[in-house]
Amino acid sequence: MERIKPRTLSGFMELLPARQTQFERMLETLRTTYALYGFTPLDTPVIESAEILLAKGGGETEKQIYRFTKGDSDLALRFDLTVPLAKYVALHYGDLAFPFRRYQIGKVYRGERAQRGRFREFYQCDIDVIGDGKLDVSNEAEIPAIIYQAFTSLGLERFKIRVNNRKILTGFYEMQGLSAQSGEIMRTVDKLDKIGPEKVQALLVEQGISQAAAQEILRFIAITGSNAQVLAALEAYRGRNQVFDQGLEELGLVVKYLASFGVPEDHFAVDLTIARGLDYYTGTVYETVMLDHPEIGSICSGGRYDNLAEYYTDKKLPGVGISIGLTRLFYVLGEQGYLNDGLVTSPADVLVLPMTEDLTAAISFATQLRQGGVRAQVYGEQKKFKGKMSYADKLGIPYVAFLGEDEIAQGVVKIKDMATGEQHTLSPAQAVDTVAAALAQRAQGKPIREKD
Amino acid sequence: MERIKPRTLSGFMELLPARQTQFERMLETLRTTYALYGFTPLDTPVIESAEILLAKGGGETEKQIYRFTKGDSDLALRFDLTVPLAKYVALHYGDLAFPFRRYQIGKVYRGERAQRGRFREFYQCDIDVIGDGKLDVSNEAEIPAIIYQAFTSLGLERFKIRVNNRKILTGFYEMQGLSAQSGEIMRTVDKLDKIGPEKVQALLVEQGISQAAAQEILRFIAITGSNAQVLAALEAYRGRNQVFDQGLEELGLVVKYLASFGVPEDHFAVDLTIARGLDYYTGTVYETVMLDHPEIGSICSGGRYDNLAEYYTDKKLPGVGISIGLTRLFYVLGEQGYLNDGLVTSPADVLVLPMTEDLTAAISFATQLRQGGVRAQVYGEQKKFKGKMSYADKLGIPYVAFLGEDEIAQGVVKIKDMATGEQHTLSPAQAVDTVAAALAQRAQGKPIREKD
Repeated sequence: MERIKPRTLSGFMELLPARQTQFERMLETLRTTYALYGFTPLDTPVIESAEILLAKGGGETEKQIYRFTKGDSDLALRFDLTVPLAKYVALHYGDLAFPFRRYQIGKVYRGERAQRGRFREFYQCDIDVIGDGKLDVSNEAEIPAIIYQAFTSLGLERFKIRVNNRKILTGFYEMQGLSAQSGEIMRTVDKLDKIGPEKVQALLVEQGISQAAAQEILRFIAITGSNAQVLAALEAYRGRNQVFDQGLEELGLVVKYLASFGVPEDHFAVDLTIARGLDYYTGTVYETVMLDHPEIGSICSGGRYDNLAEYYTDKKLPGVGISIGLTRLFYVLGEQGYLNDGLVTSPADVLVLPMTEDLTAAISFATQLRQGGVRAQVYGEQKKFKGKMSYADKLGIPYVAFLGEDEIAQGVVKIKDMATGEQHTLSPAQAVDTVAAALAQRAQGKPIREKD
Repeated sequence: MERIKPRTLSGFMELLPARQTQFERMLETLRTTYALYGFTPLDTPVIESAEILLAKGGGETEKQIYRFTKGDSDLALRFDLTVPLAKYVALHYGDLAFPFRRYQIGKVYRGERAQRGRFREFYQCDIDVIGDGKLDVSNEAEIPAIIYQAFTSLGLERFKIRVNNRKILTGFYEMQGLSAQSGEIMRTVDKLDKIGPEKVQALLVEQGISQAAAQEILRFIAITGSNAQVLAALEAYRGRNQVFDQGLEELGLVVKYLASFGVPEDHFAVDLTIARGLDYYTGTVYETVMLDHPEIGSICSGGRYDNLAEYYTDKKLPGVGISIGLTRLFYVLGEQGYLNDGLVTSPADVLVLPMTEDLTAAISFATQLRQGGVRAQVYGEQKKFKGKMSYADKLGIPYVAFLGEDEIAQGVVKIKDMATGEQHTLSPAQAVDTVAAALAQRAQGKPIREKD
């Protein structure tokens, strides 16, 4: 038979079992965290009508999208989870209660040029709160709490949530009489981290901004310090522009509620340089950076927008949301050695080795383990003892249970702890309890473990 | 602005939040069940090279597949999880330990003609055990236990697992000198439930089988009764054909281990009419039927095969696996009123209603609830009291917490049980414990609830 060489497309992540187990643990942690904050799970099709997905049209999206026909239908694969959410809310508007809070964790597709650490198929893990007509700013104040809880639950400690408010920026540029250029200015200012203040100022002047105004902009975005210090410095601008003042109020509220939301001050910073390139953010915007790896960029971003679904409905649907690109984050964590290999990644907790031809006793014990919540596999293959042990070893299975004629006759089971090499002969019920307790202990760790 | 009418493609399931929550609960139950039996989670790309997916080629698959080009690449969406598994095992052979036990739960795509209850995008929930060169029959004996555990955990009670062994059929037809026609005969016999024995006999004769042989076939497939009775009847054929005898041994082993695997005899039946159309099954085959809804057909099927990945590797990789088509099953369960609406489907367990402008106390209490594992939402919208309560009502949120000036001054919180209307004033810590305990009680139910 002529064979086809097996391969996986480049830009598509396909993990080996132990790594996949770590990835699943992270998915589960995010699902649990999002649910704790009252978000409902949502699932939408991967394929949508191209007309729906490209309603906004233009730009990079159209070039990267996977688009094709099937019969008469012009179809495409979703490239994010926001457009499908907009469609969903517009379509099911009458069946939803607002504010509508949903999380969605799913794969999205972008046919980018493949390069190291970039993926064409990747998981987005999104939450959004959608209001009907209006949405209280307290929802914006809650987002940093969810980001903090999500990463802390994953095991990340050295990260910072950076927050700004687009109204402050918009208002500031209005004060300077630079409203028309504000979009362009913000995109330039966004490069501050990368190219430094001198080059930003030069670029601004190139764009036709006066030297004086450019200096004023740089003085403004140079406002740093503790949250209280930044807010105090911004007070100096109050009273000159209504939009600015509203933004300052909102930012003040976001900062005010941090403590009651359980976010430590050192994990949060007001940062006036953050604008989030996208035009549709209108209020609070968020970025999250790993303190030891700023080069990775933001690992969780989002913000407040005023109109989620304008392409599908005349209902005004303001919202606030964030997204974690988990595939890329997982890749980076793996590269950096941040994945916690101390957690069990084997498919089973106990490998039951029958030492007799009749498997009845081994199977019964495995059934008992499962009833006690312990993941068990009966190894029924005809192999030498050494081969069976090396299977347990290769998979990293923490415990092996032996059931030979003696054990069966005495109604006991011999349990070997593969890490310590210790062996104990126990009654089946004792064995289940002992193993379950030890596993619960080992499961305390989190998916991410930062280096010391 | 010109608007595009929002729509979801036909044949694509998109659920409202409460239904989605029920679906997620079923996914979670299957993940947990599969993991208990020592299967590792796997995830493979939705898009593969068309050459890979169509290696076997021909037939319905090729017509139904979503296939398209992107740049120079000829791509397609996976139409099942078995072909990607074959590719995965062939590709990563050197990194895997065998037997390789994996579960995969994911969406697959088939561009069938859309009709009621048929889906173009649907979840398959698969497990497979793959051996390297050989695979012990005890793996085949384990499968009914997993099917039983999966459906029982989901809450289904009135179902039966039907089992046969292809070697028994193959051996029987060899005895009759009908080996060449056996494939065709089995496909005809497969229609027994639908068209009855007379029509099957007539069809067999039409296919060129002698009246005597057709009668012999019908006598054979009419063997029914308890497992012991069927096995006893099959003993009468022993000694005439080697393949048959081996099949009988295997079937005997599968039946023998049922009890130690915890499968009640009344949920299991040897059924000689089952062949599973697919040519590649070579040993035990499985079907699962709902006793009250035989018209739905099998809700979980599979079997033993001898060569998983012959299109990609010269390694012989025998295996055994089953698949649950969850999207269709979920649809049917919903139609039949079998989804358990007694379980909480709201996004939050507690809606915290601040009755003061300052939200600090409400937010702090919500944070405390979440630390106690209770899903909490702070309702921060400016609405009348009635509007807030109707939001809780519409979402089916079980508890509402009130925090007015009096409560804040006294350091208490008022909790209302939305089902009974009862209100209690408690300390925040008491409130968390009380609600958590009540929720644990309510969460006892299973996703499926059969009618009485």
